Amino acid sequence: MLVSEIGEFTLIDLLARECGVSFGPGMGVPPRPGLLVDIGDDAAVSAPRHSAALWTTDCLVAGQHFLPDKTCWRDVGWKALTVNLSDIAAMGGEPNLALAGLLLPSDFSVEDVVETYRGIQDAAQAFGVTVAGGNVSRAPVFAISIALSGWALTSSLGQPRLLRRNGARLGDLLAVTGTFGDSAAGLELARSSAVAQTGPDAFLKQRYDRPEPRVTIGKLAVDLGLRCAIDISDGLVQDLGHVARASGVALRLDANRVPVSEALTSRFPARALGLALTGGGDYELALIAPPPAMEALLQAQTEVALTVIGEVVAGDPHVAVIDERGQEIPLGSQGWDHFKTP
Amino acid sequence: MLVSEIGEFTLIDLLARECGVSFGPGMGVPPRPGLLVDIGDDAAVSAPRHSAALWTTDCLVAGQHFLPDKTCWRDVGWKALTVNLSDIAAMGGEPNLALAGLLLPSDFSVEDVVETYRGIQDAAQAFGVTVAGGNVSRAPVFAISIALSGWALTSSLGQPRLLRRNGARLGDLLAVTGTFGDSAAGLELARSSAVAQTGPDAFLKQRYDRPEPRVTIGKLAVDLGLRCAIDISDGLVQDLGHVARASGVALRLDANRVPVSEALTSRFPARALGLALTGGGDYELALIAPPPAMEALLQAQTEVALTVIGEVVAGDPHVAVIDERGQEIPLGSQGWDHFKTP
Repeated sequence: MLVSEIGEFTLIDLLARECGVSFGPGMGVPPRPGLLVDIGDDAAVSAPRHSAALWTTDCLVAGQHFLPDKTCWRDVGWKALTVNLSDIAAMGGEPNLALAGLLLPSDFSVEDVVETYRGIQDAAQAFGVTVAGGNVSRAPVFAISIALSGWALTSSLGQPRLLRRNGARLGDLLAVTGTFGDSAAGLELARSSAVAQTGPDAFLKQRYDRPEPRVTIGKLAVDLGLRCAIDISDGLVQDLGHVARASGVALRLDANRVPVSEALTSRFPARALGLALTGGGDYELALIAPPPAMEALLQAQTEVALTVIGEVVAGDPHVAVIDERGQEIPLGSQGWDHFKTP
Repeated sequence: MLVSEIGEFTLIDLLARECGVSFGPGMGVPPRPGLLVDIGDDAAVSAPRHSAALWTTDCLVAGQHFLPDKTCWRDVGWKALTVNLSDIAAMGGEPNLALAGLLLPSDFSVEDVVETYRGIQDAAQAFGVTVAGGNVSRAPVFAISIALSGWALTSSLGQPRLLRRNGARLGDLLAVTGTFGDSAAGLELARSSAVAQTGPDAFLKQRYDRPEPRVTIGKLAVDLGLRCAIDISDGLVQDLGHVARASGVALRLDANRVPVSEALTSRFPARALGLALTGGGDYELALIAPPPAMEALLQAQTEVALTVIGEVVAGDPHVAVIDERGQEIPLGSQGWDHFKTP
């Protein structure tokens, strides 16, 4: 069935049901935990909590941030929320409430909208998020805009503890979660051909379709006293540039320590490093901290590979990538720009 | 200049500047009041406050919610925030923080994006909102998605005081702010021809382009003990239907008391009532309250016309529109559905 056949209000009812909210007569359902007013009024209302709040928003546009013909809609929903969760993770925060705005062509299938919402709910449940509202609008392109709020962890004195981009200091170590370049490779494979359901191609495609936001390690890092991180969404070198500029430091990065997956090296042996340094869509964390705090994090965390790949050095704010002979590798395009790249 | 010529990051810097945030070296600018971390990190961070928070989101799509050839971009920005402010007003809340996501075609003009953001900032400053972040994405259509958070007013015991859709009770009076049908008429005029710069046409077009969210009267209503309201965005009868169903009551509405502007009656003499009852885009408030509380509100508020147009009566949840002879007027389409209407 098409969304134009059931109309806006029936569709909203259907999507609210995917969030676990059923509108009965009188809409007398009790609100979900943490909410005083649930979906179905002019605005949702959340219960008070005396913490600093985090705010972020990001949008997926069909054909721009995912390939609608080569991705299942449930993964699209997952990705829409998780790219936002990655920002909360990069601040060391605890995700809380999300709002989901959908743009839908009128010939879009109701089943696909519901699947998209299921994917949003999968991610919401996995990371403790309540989808407190949203809207649907007709548009010539499918897009999902998510606004996500979270809580800052607080010190025993009640002060917010955050991972900032401006927290890097001379002598700090730089470590990253997971592997890099997989997502860019997965996108390239998906664009060029049908992707195999198993093996390295499937792995790389999955890395493009279903980012894993590093929420747990972000919170753990804050707990262990770290103060600097960023999420790598537009390319490792480009995003580390934001840290360098915000902190007023140079970052030196050993190319041969940048973690890459077996799938990436097997499918793109000559280009693995280039993809890892400049490919977008990784949604991994880069964490920057003095050696003792970094050592504590390396010891304490077990959820994901965490690899030291560089350090903070003296120099103008920039990112230097060094090869095995100690020479700086010249880089062309350092990452992803949604307007400048084709 | 086109957005594709300056790229995503230069554009974000420009828009941040419109919000009053300049990225210097080290991004060492102090955050704006109410924020602990401003635009320029992975997420913004707001200062703690122990209140229930309100959450809403709405989106404007070019050609769907405004006519890009017939509206100035500053008005588009104004409308994008104010349609969300109207939802906070309808809960009796105090607006606080907004996130603004822009979808932009790559051949969109930088000057027009900046003008749009100026319009958002106009509304933000008029209603005490801080735009704490956003994103820009490339898309085949221009759209703005705003997520807006606010605070609930609280009782002396610290309990949130809200205007709910389910608060209507038998014997309550129904009053509305402003006039109805202007916006639908303005849209119709703009679609059919060039709109005069002055006179009734300009007034009606302005009512379509620049909604005035009723934030002040919403908060005053809460202060005076009212407990029920809704904002009328999709048509008076249709939106009052949400109150009828949520409260489990019937609403009786006197057609000849529904406020219409002189501009509407002069330009659409035969259709003024129909437009007022079913036209979308009014962004006025309907308030429902026992006679003493309504009387107090009528006495206390001076910002906008407030007109009693009906009452809550016994019967199945529905809205009955009564003519001067006491007969119920049959209504066809009761309002706006973004998918079903052409």
